[in-house]
Amino acid sequence: MRTAYHEQLDALSSQLGEMCGLAGLAMERATQALLQADLALAEQVITDHEKIAAMSVRAEESAFVLLALQAPVAGDLRSVVSSIQIVADVDRMGALALHVAKIARRRHPQHALPEEVNGYFAEMGRLAVELGQSAQEVLISRDPEKAARIREEDDAMDDLHRHLFSVLMDREWKHGVAAAVDITLLGRFYERFADHAVEVARRVIFQVTGSNPDETELPLPR
Amino acid sequence: MRTAYHEQLDALSSQLGEMCGLAGLAMERATQALLQADLALAEQVITDHEKIAAMSVRAEESAFVLLALQAPVAGDLRSVVSSIQIVADVDRMGALALHVAKIARRRHPQHALPEEVNGYFAEMGRLAVELGQSAQEVLISRDPEKAARIREEDDAMDDLHRHLFSVLMDREWKHGVAAAVDITLLGRFYERFADHAVEVARRVIFQVTGSNPDETELPLPR
Repeated sequence: MRTAYHEQLDALSSQLGEMCGLAGLAMERATQALLQADLALAEQVITDHEKIAAMSVRAEESAFVLLALQAPVAGDLRSVVSSIQIVADVDRMGALALHVAKIARRRHPQHALPEEVNGYFAEMGRLAVELGQSAQEVLISRDPEKAARIREEDDAMDDLHRHLFSVLMDREWKHGVAAAVDITLLGRFYERFADHAVEVARRVIFQVTGSNPDETELPLPR
Repeated sequence: MRTAYHEQLDALSSQLGEMCGLAGLAMERATQALLQADLALAEQVITDHEKIAAMSVRAEESAFVLLALQAPVAGDLRSVVSSIQIVADVDRMGALALHVAKIARRRHPQHALPEEVNGYFAEMGRLAVELGQSAQEVLISRDPEKAARIREEDDAMDDLHRHLFSVLMDREWKHGVAAAVDITLLGRFYERFADHAVEVARRVIFQVTGSNPDETELPLPR
């Protein structure tokens, strides 16, 4: 039998999933703003961030109300507690997209990125959208196999990040220190975005199984 | 009258405070490891991190048990929920100290930092200890005035961080891109450490007053 509690918990998971999707979309747009030096798009990401922040506050409040009114126990209690923790991760994903958009805005009308590294960021942006979508799917389906896919996407992000650093460290780097500083921060923002998506998946699987996925299956965030 | 619930909640706050102190200590040692290229100290921070991580797991479990067995309501419920959120911030403070130690280890026997920026990092390390101690005091005392002090320490960290970037961006920078990349990441780690301490204070004040401190009093994390 479906209880009011479970309906409300499902609604909360949907809210969190929607936030993940929006964070991925924000990162995609921030990436486009970065690649095209598109000020209007950067501004849009910055404005839209308030929506994600407001959704975070609402999701946290929903979880609190669930605890207060339904007084869940055992596994049900664990689910709500996980949801509260997941809010913080998804909120942070949105903030990282915001940071990327702000760098695009700060450098406008110039491009923040030398053309040489555009390909890395295009690919990291694409992965960020996938990670947002995968996290959303995991939140809705609670499927451990879908959670494992996030690990692959995170591995791909880490590979890109490592390659990007080797480009920066190359003696032939000729775009100066200022660009290197921007790229270092930007690379970190994408990497952390992926880490938080992994953490969302890890918490969902913990909800379902009551134990943390083995590190060989799902990496812990850095 | 003191209830078992309040005793357990106080014990949880002490645990969280202790973790803040340890995270500050870890950041101080990591800073020394960085400044002195001291491999043994870097290794100690890396090993000790497992203690902070284990304390996080225990604190989270204590909060969960409090919810499960005491079923607190209203303000008491809000306190436990805040504690669960605070665990994530303090855990992250420890992870950031770990990151600093890992950069010191990676560059050993060389110094990761050119001498020119040592002063900035010595001061950021000092502030990190203060922030850890202040966060601990706020957790124990729940005193909004002490929470406001964290804001000043965070402002000081931000100032240092900005100055550090202006040194990097200077056309006279002569230590190459690799050092600039390390310094960019390191600066970010200290800045985020301070942000998490601010967030701990913000959550404690929210517990006490039921409303978020005004942004002019306590800045939101970036």
